[in-house]
Amino acid sequence: MSPRPGGKRSGRRPGESGTREAIVRAARRLFADLGYDRTTIRAIAAEAGVDAALVVHFFGSKQQLFLVVVELPFEPAAVLPRLLAGDRAGVGERLARFLVAVLEDPDGRGRLTGIVRAAASEPEAARMLRELITERIVTPLADTLGVEDARLRANLVGSQVVGLVMARYVVGVEPLASLAPDALVRAVAPTFQRYLTEPLG
Amino acid sequence: MSPRPGGKRSGRRPGESGTREAIVRAARRLFADLGYDRTTIRAIAAEAGVDAALVVHFFGSKQQLFLVVVELPFEPAAVLPRLLAGDRAGVGERLARFLVAVLEDPDGRGRLTGIVRAAASEPEAARMLRELITERIVTPLADTLGVEDARLRANLVGSQVVGLVMARYVVGVEPLASLAPDALVRAVAPTFQRYLTEPLG
Repeated sequence: MSPRPGGKRSGRRPGESGTREAIVRAARRLFADLGYDRTTIRAIAAEAGVDAALVVHFFGSKQQLFLVVVELPFEPAAVLPRLLAGDRAGVGERLARFLVAVLEDPDGRGRLTGIVRAAASEPEAARMLRELITERIVTPLADTLGVEDARLRANLVGSQVVGLVMARYVVGVEPLASLAPDALVRAVAPTFQRYLTEPLG
Repeated sequence: MSPRPGGKRSGRRPGESGTREAIVRAARRLFADLGYDRTTIRAIAAEAGVDAALVVHFFGSKQQLFLVVVELPFEPAAVLPRLLAGDRAGVGERLARFLVAVLEDPDGRGRLTGIVRAAASEPEAARMLRELITERIVTPLADTLGVEDARLRANLVGSQVVGLVMARYVVGVEPLASLAPDALVRAVAPTFQRYLTEPLG
């Protein structure tokens, strides 16, 4: 393969969908590496080898591009009903096993740590993620649970997931950071079980 | 009171301790408002009304100043033994009640959200906070618990606390963000109880 023309378009111009895809890939890489704040339209354009004006033309703003790029590593509306179906006494462990598997996969971990870091980095990103999380996770999870307090239960599960992402993968406190995945599942499954199915007090 | 001389020292020069204190106050405000990344020595100096060279003279670097400024809203080595003393069956609720009280106080909430946001914002801040958390929280909590797996138990409690800070105060997902403090205590106390005293599976 020939080397990528650095920053300047040259030779054959890629089609529109190829250009969009290159911008999304560049944005995903920079948001993950630098966080939301320090990533600029200009830097994304340079990384993708296109003009900044083209990024604005396709995506409008950094915020809008961010929402396109921030893809969850799984589709909650598809996954959650499957995890919650069947034996209610095992739902905490099934959810824990699923989430730990996502987090032990480099791509899944990269996406989730990117989302958590972006949410922490500034109010604008936090606001966007509040809407994303509510629409894409809290509502499907609450609809699937179908009990009173379902939204609060979904929030509580989410708070423990975000806390694990921060403690184990972002900050890396020990011994949690080195804990074997199976032991992590056993440690947090009863927490999910209680938040999902037991009285909240 | 006369207005503060804006950016330039004029009139009576404050004593060294007054200047240090002004720098710490300015740094605390900027780290909380802007996060770790976007706060510069130059901006701290301007906010404190002193030369940037004086900030470096007193504190060395942004990292060192950050560690001086990041004060926990309570002293774990003093508080934890008191919370963990007595009836072991009530330890989760005592810890939940204490932490929710700290988080409902504007100063305590400001400090803890500042720490969590800084930890998320970049690897250097995360590394510093890993050491701070291990030394100031995990070790005293583990020493007080005095059981096997005590450090892992302390990590798990910390992960739920960090997750609550993120979900309720930084991102603000509903209904968790509006939940009454007493209901929050009841919702999370059994999680802390299990992480501290029950089998981890």
